[in-house]
Amino acid sequence: MSATSRYIRLLAGEYGEKLDLVEEKPWERRREFLAMNPAATLPVLIEDDGPPIVGGVIVGEYIDETRGVFSRDKRLMPEKPIERAEVRRLTEWFVEKFDQEVTRYLVRERIFKLEMSKEDGGGSPDASAIRAARTNSRHHLRYVGWLAENRNWLAGSRMSQADLAAAAALSVLDYLGEIPWENEPAAKEWYSRIKSRPSFRPLLSEKVRGVPPVRHYADLDF
Amino acid sequence: MSATSRYIRLLAGEYGEKLDLVEEKPWERRREFLAMNPAATLPVLIEDDGPPIVGGVIVGEYIDETRGVFSRDKRLMPEKPIERAEVRRLTEWFVEKFDQEVTRYLVRERIFKLEMSKEDGGGSPDASAIRAARTNSRHHLRYVGWLAENRNWLAGSRMSQADLAAAAALSVLDYLGEIPWENEPAAKEWYSRIKSRPSFRPLLSEKVRGVPPVRHYADLDF
Repeated sequence: MSATSRYIRLLAGEYGEKLDLVEEKPWERRREFLAMNPAATLPVLIEDDGPPIVGGVIVGEYIDETRGVFSRDKRLMPEKPIERAEVRRLTEWFVEKFDQEVTRYLVRERIFKLEMSKEDGGGSPDASAIRAARTNSRHHLRYVGWLAENRNWLAGSRMSQADLAAAAALSVLDYLGEIPWENEPAAKEWYSRIKSRPSFRPLLSEKVRGVPPVRHYADLDF
Repeated sequence: MSATSRYIRLLAGEYGEKLDLVEEKPWERRREFLAMNPAATLPVLIEDDGPPIVGGVIVGEYIDETRGVFSRDKRLMPEKPIERAEVRRLTEWFVEKFDQEVTRYLVRERIFKLEMSKEDGGGSPDASAIRAARTNSRHHLRYVGWLAENRNWLAGSRMSQADLAAAAALSVLDYLGEIPWENEPAAKEWYSRIKSRPSFRPLLSEKVRGVPPVRHYADLDF
């Protein structure tokens, strides 16, 4: 349920790269984890016992620079600096802003709190946090709809990292039944295109214990 | 007093690029500004009437890709992906994390509130926000000290964008007299190296009306 880890899994999947996944609960603040990433954020990528590469945006750039550059017309980052800036703006939007205003609260209140100890902040969900996140979510969904109406893919005419970052974030909310797709047909059409990609399949088959996904979650034709 | 705008000014300065500065008060949420950047964050760069490039990290990447790449051994971004990841980690640390935990509060409470209308959130400073920011600031300064003790420059053996991002953030706090340099001699030695660079000079000569800098702010030998 980490939207940013999902983004990296999609990106690696698009380049045919298999990752070994290790679950980490950042709120436990494990010593070994803090030594890898003092910011205590996810995801962290380790390649061939090299130093840890931390943070969704940065791991994304690393995968582009080590995998994307060799993928020719399948590269998910454009060549021109001004187009790269737009891909980065939207990637950052979904990895940082959307997370800070929406996903973080909904996932924390509806999922992580069930697993957290009382000392770590576990307990019953905070209704006002959920309400605020849902209000913010409507504006973001409207923005995705607007982008999908005006462009073929979110950052321009070709699929890019930004589409994966956005779809990763929306997939977490969709699991929780938090997306009224009927209000945003263009966003829905775009999401169903991304959702049909092979890289998406592993995400759709995973379930959180005790929190089943909404019925349409794994349907490619929803 | 925008640490991130300062970072971009330093970066452009290092590449000998002159910027035309336009002051923007994001809390006023000007229509034209929101149209350029719906996230309402600073800085925004516009080049040759092209589309706006928004956000400190992203503008930094853009300047690297359009100026840095032509600067050979003066480029402030390394070539190797793994080293680039470390420069990016620290740049993001100072542009995002340090801002969210420290600078934002101190600047808002001690400077912006004097200029803001009551509706926009102006008024007297919130002592508890200032206290929390100062506590966070100690941990960050300790981290800069640790990096400066263990490396020649913050992200490695050569000066990089990360040094500029960190120095930009610290310069704002230093203006306000919020940095106890005597506690962190290695950080102080590193900062005095950066502060002596010609790109830093314009920042040191600017003053906020009604809020004079601490006495040592513009001294190269402080």
